[in-house]
Amino acid sequence: MKKILNNPSDVVTEMLAGFVQIHEDVQLLKDTHVIARRTPQDGKVAIISGGGSGHEPAHAGFVGDGLLDAAVCGQVFTSPTPDQILAAIKAVHTGAGVFLVIKNYSGDCMNFEMAKDLAEMEGIDVDFVIVNDDVAVFDSSFTEGRRGVAGTLFMHKVLGAAAKNGARLTDIKALADNVVTHLASVGFAISPATVPEVGKPGFELSATEMEFGIGIHGEPGYRREELKSSREIAVELLDKLEEETSWSSKKVAVLFNGMGATPLMEQYIFANDVLTLLEERGYEVVYKKLGNYMTAIDMAGMSLTLFELADAQWLDYLNQHTDAPAW
Amino acid sequence: MKKILNNPSDVVTEMLAGFVQIHEDVQLLKDTHVIARRTPQDGKVAIISGGGSGHEPAHAGFVGDGLLDAAVCGQVFTSPTPDQILAAIKAVHTGAGVFLVIKNYSGDCMNFEMAKDLAEMEGIDVDFVIVNDDVAVFDSSFTEGRRGVAGTLFMHKVLGAAAKNGARLTDIKALADNVVTHLASVGFAISPATVPEVGKPGFELSATEMEFGIGIHGEPGYRREELKSSREIAVELLDKLEEETSWSSKKVAVLFNGMGATPLMEQYIFANDVLTLLEERGYEVVYKKLGNYMTAIDMAGMSLTLFELADAQWLDYLNQHTDAPAW
Repeated sequence: MKKILNNPSDVVTEMLAGFVQIHEDVQLLKDTHVIARRTPQDGKVAIISGGGSGHEPAHAGFVGDGLLDAAVCGQVFTSPTPDQILAAIKAVHTGAGVFLVIKNYSGDCMNFEMAKDLAEMEGIDVDFVIVNDDVAVFDSSFTEGRRGVAGTLFMHKVLGAAAKNGARLTDIKALADNVVTHLASVGFAISPATVPEVGKPGFELSATEMEFGIGIHGEPGYRREELKSSREIAVELLDKLEEETSWSSKKVAVLFNGMGATPLMEQYIFANDVLTLLEERGYEVVYKKLGNYMTAIDMAGMSLTLFELADAQWLDYLNQHTDAPAW
Repeated sequence: MKKILNNPSDVVTEMLAGFVQIHEDVQLLKDTHVIARRTPQDGKVAIISGGGSGHEPAHAGFVGDGLLDAAVCGQVFTSPTPDQILAAIKAVHTGAGVFLVIKNYSGDCMNFEMAKDLAEMEGIDVDFVIVNDDVAVFDSSFTEGRRGVAGTLFMHKVLGAAAKNGARLTDIKALADNVVTHLASVGFAISPATVPEVGKPGFELSATEMEFGIGIHGEPGYRREELKSSREIAVELLDKLEEETSWSSKKVAVLFNGMGATPLMEQYIFANDVLTLLEERGYEVVYKKLGNYMTAIDMAGMSLTLFELADAQWLDYLNQHTDAPAW
């Protein structure tokens, strides 16, 4: 394993210590791996997300005005504990309730829901959504149903803007339940990720292989084959997304997400191919975002997320200002 | 070579085609690889930078209000031609003159200065600065003196803000000549970069080796040794920077720059070690920035830039708003 680090078991602690020195608008809660806004907005529903670390900048980089109020950071590729999540809830709730954005992994679902119960016993209203945007596979390692991946970023942004604009907890819940059905993602990898404490790649790909549909923890995808061109990958991913969705319109926001080790050069080339194809297929792409947002440590690869903008207000929410450093 | 692309000789064309679809506030000039603002600010000195491609988001990602007016993109790791640079100059000058920010590589210096001469023959006032912030080596491949690396980003930002605030061409020149003496960078690599058209890594490092002082095109550094811990690398780099500079104050801006394939997890860990060390050594760090800014395609590694804030206004310039997508 070749990485820039000290003790592999300290990566999350040291990374978050670095994070709050670089981004001084947020704080690291004492004795726990929670990044939270220094000054939660009074009377606003607090939006919290989180999960295992290793997906940086998700989720800590999305804490800020107009986006998340806190991010709960588990160990690498490991769900945060109910205690951590409860600490985040208590740190940022200001009386209007707390909404949890959970990616669909069994451990995350269990621990976030347990934290919800604990918070409710303390009189805090909590609700949640489980994001399951990855259309690649159904029922895979660690997950019943579909996994939650980069589409979660669009969920964050829409809910963050809605909460800032004064939506109540019940409104946020209804919004989230609607948005989640309009998100679809699929990814691919050309090289694997290495968890620091494990010290070797989580899977193997030969020098000429790639894998379609791989998860953000290196979970198996739906097909392994010889490396394709960017244009061929674009066709494969868009075909898969169209096969697995049945939306009524073609007005979409698109997220091109780098997995961690893929340079921008390749990301823009891939985006060019996908956007050309979307135009050919009659899509109206009204919002575009590209970069490393929901990574898999140092995996090379990308994911493509489509978000059907079934409600005109969603685009406005995407475009509203946020000062979260990674948006 | 494992990359997401189509024809290796088309990477710059396809990347820029993708770039302007994602970032609609800028345009790609017809028939040349120049990214320029759609609406240059009238009566403002135009700031232009550029160089070989492969350093994304540099420089195209820094075109925007309050930063660059144009970025001239050469082929990968290859200087842009005088014609390209002239096209950029003519596209964004509005009568107040044009200032060129050149990284110190022999090809870049020659071609940018030739474009200056050509523009002056057409009656456009042009001046320039050559950034040479890399303290690692003196007189190396492709460069007389010191190379220009990530410190160039601070130069961009300071000049971009000054120009927006109304500085004249002679003011910008004096400012640039002052700023350049207060910039110092040094980098390291733990794995090499692969130029798409070459198809194999530009140098070799064994599974346990790293190289200190490596350039952003993989040019040789000053020492190759067994991979060190993040903390040890921080000490080495800061020692080197202190050895090679003789500044009068310790008030600095710091840039932690990822080389392309290094995930944020490692970048924040390294930043934590460097910031701890800077504090121990009595530095006052008043501005911090971390991410992939001046990359070397898919090289893994980082660079550390210190910018001595010898003038209080420079910090203000760093903090002023810009809408450039990559800042």
